[in-house]
Amino acid sequence: MKIDGTPYRAIWPGEDGVSACIIDQTRLPHEFVTVDLRSVDEAATAIRDMWVRGAPLIGATAAYGMALAMQRDAGDAALAAAYDTLIATRPTAINLKWALDAARARLAPLGQAERAEAAWRFAAELCDEDVAVNHAIGANGLALIREIAAKKKPGERVNVLTHCNAGWIATVDWGTATSPIYQAHDEGIDVHVFVDETRPRNQGASLTAWELGKHGVPHTLIVDNAGGHLMQHGQVDIVITGTDRTTAQGDVCNKIGTYLKALAAKDNGIPFYVALPSSTIDWTVRDGVREIPIEERSGEEVTWIQGRRADGTLDKVLISPPDTPAANPAFDVTPARLVTGLITERGICAASAEGLAGLFPERAVA
Amino acid sequence: MKIDGTPYRAIWPGEDGVSACIIDQTRLPHEFVTVDLRSVDEAATAIRDMWVRGAPLIGATAAYGMALAMQRDAGDAALAAAYDTLIATRPTAINLKWALDAARARLAPLGQAERAEAAWRFAAELCDEDVAVNHAIGANGLALIREIAAKKKPGERVNVLTHCNAGWIATVDWGTATSPIYQAHDEGIDVHVFVDETRPRNQGASLTAWELGKHGVPHTLIVDNAGGHLMQHGQVDIVITGTDRTTAQGDVCNKIGTYLKALAAKDNGIPFYVALPSSTIDWTVRDGVREIPIEERSGEEVTWIQGRRADGTLDKVLISPPDTPAANPAFDVTPARLVTGLITERGICAASAEGLAGLFPERAVA
Repeated sequence: MKIDGTPYRAIWPGEDGVSACIIDQTRLPHEFVTVDLRSVDEAATAIRDMWVRGAPLIGATAAYGMALAMQRDAGDAALAAAYDTLIATRPTAINLKWALDAARARLAPLGQAERAEAAWRFAAELCDEDVAVNHAIGANGLALIREIAAKKKPGERVNVLTHCNAGWIATVDWGTATSPIYQAHDEGIDVHVFVDETRPRNQGASLTAWELGKHGVPHTLIVDNAGGHLMQHGQVDIVITGTDRTTAQGDVCNKIGTYLKALAAKDNGIPFYVALPSSTIDWTVRDGVREIPIEERSGEEVTWIQGRRADGTLDKVLISPPDTPAANPAFDVTPARLVTGLITERGICAASAEGLAGLFPERAVA
Repeated sequence: MKIDGTPYRAIWPGEDGVSACIIDQTRLPHEFVTVDLRSVDEAATAIRDMWVRGAPLIGATAAYGMALAMQRDAGDAALAAAYDTLIATRPTAINLKWALDAARARLAPLGQAERAEAAWRFAAELCDEDVAVNHAIGANGLALIREIAAKKKPGERVNVLTHCNAGWIATVDWGTATSPIYQAHDEGIDVHVFVDETRPRNQGASLTAWELGKHGVPHTLIVDNAGGHLMQHGQVDIVITGTDRTTAQGDVCNKIGTYLKALAAKDNGIPFYVALPSSTIDWTVRDGVREIPIEERSGEEVTWIQGRRADGTLDKVLISPPDTPAANPAFDVTPARLVTGLITERGICAASAEGLAGLFPERAVA
């Protein structure tokens, strides 16, 4: 999408032909800094230290990491070492393993002289594929927004509420939850987004608010507590979130707090949609609440908050007594019964085994 | 309650006989500082600048402010001026007006020589009355916690979730939502509290966590997003919150985000109770969602967060892009249908017109 009028992707090959470029997302929203990755180790650092985050973008960065390795040394040992270096960065990121396995399968059979060029081509294809999938998600979700817009009186805007960052900077472009929003905005629909700040890591306040603002999409930041009140008072037309993992029966595991917004949407008769590439469907899991283990992260993410001081420097502040224990479950599961529909690259379906089987007959389990 | 073993109230007459003492709550949880108020202007500053907050404590501070005025000048003009000075500090605080009206009604008929002593006595009585009411709320709520404790296996604790600060430092002592918790803890029940941090002003992280910790009540701080997940997984036995205003049919207007916790409690079959002194019931309002106007506060409370830096200094940090617009509704309304019961000083009743009429027959409207 655009940053102050200039089109960007979240990762792109450098003009020098030997580097991959990213945005250092740890500095957002306070500083916009691009980084040229020139080696597999630099790519590994970018993933490990979360300069890039979001499953699709992590996979894309790993693919470029393989290309950076191959252009330096395309031998079998170097291929294996690059794989090992990159896979160790974020052990639980499924897209990371998927991208690396695919890259290795493509490169290993080739002669060494061909590997570097093939690795660059693979990374570019993987990125284009991600962009195509996300664009398709957006085109499908756009129909929902158009429908709401058609019922509005002149001057009334379409209000979307989103949680966390399932935006273009979590992918190569478009994002998932944001893709219908960007497409609606770009075709002239008066769409406005309520952005949950998304404690404890504030991805809504720091990333979603930033990318919507840079592309020019009207939005308002709110605390995670506020969405229910807005829905009670008719200020939200539709909720669209992303998901980290979707079960075969349509339960949605996403950033902590998503479940509370789904409850409020249900209580107020507001459609609650989840946007996802089908690669995030885990066909082996059915009951998300019972079966999905939830990552418990450091309590310091709750008690210490990072931001920019008035003098421009970045710092952290403690918001509790120093000895206060904190619990920090990172995700929650929204049961399928609260989800109006799943927006995928193949279309929109009900959040149910039957709904998913309709769109993905080749994967559905009896 | 206790602070590191020493019993405190949130306001008390100074040993010198001419001052009223408070805790400067703007410095909590990072610094514990008591302040001696020596004039009506100092009392007004304490209220206006939120060194004291919480409706009951504001009323008590105003009553002491009248005493501080009268001991300096007990004339009619001074009485009127003290009233005007104090009423202007927080124009929307109902307890403030109530306490000041009562003080004026008590003092005005008296001769000037009697007013100072009568004003000190009035303030002390008002405080004792608040303590008695809150203790009665706690005794009634304690029965609920005892019932849960009786069903626990040895070693299992009773888990209470609370939102915002309805604690002893929002009142003269005991608090409202915290009163049953303190009484359960003090009689040896193994009670543990999940404390919502309560964005945007973080009263849970800064005040509730502080006062529970100082009294020795086990507790865990969580982000406001986490409660639903904990309830899905059986980690919460009961929710108890306070309320700023309760309608005649039992709707509850409380800190923003309370409604979301009530929805999650309902969805998981967990009892959701609201603790309140009957003085906060607004008998003129029925449908809280439709009738209660919600205060919209500054967006800067959302985008800037105050805390303590690693070097010990207090500062604020910006968590969003500098130009991000933010909305900040301060309260929401939880419909009575989501409230299991209201814990009052007279007993527990259903959150309904009938339930309230049973406890308060003299106030109930046909």
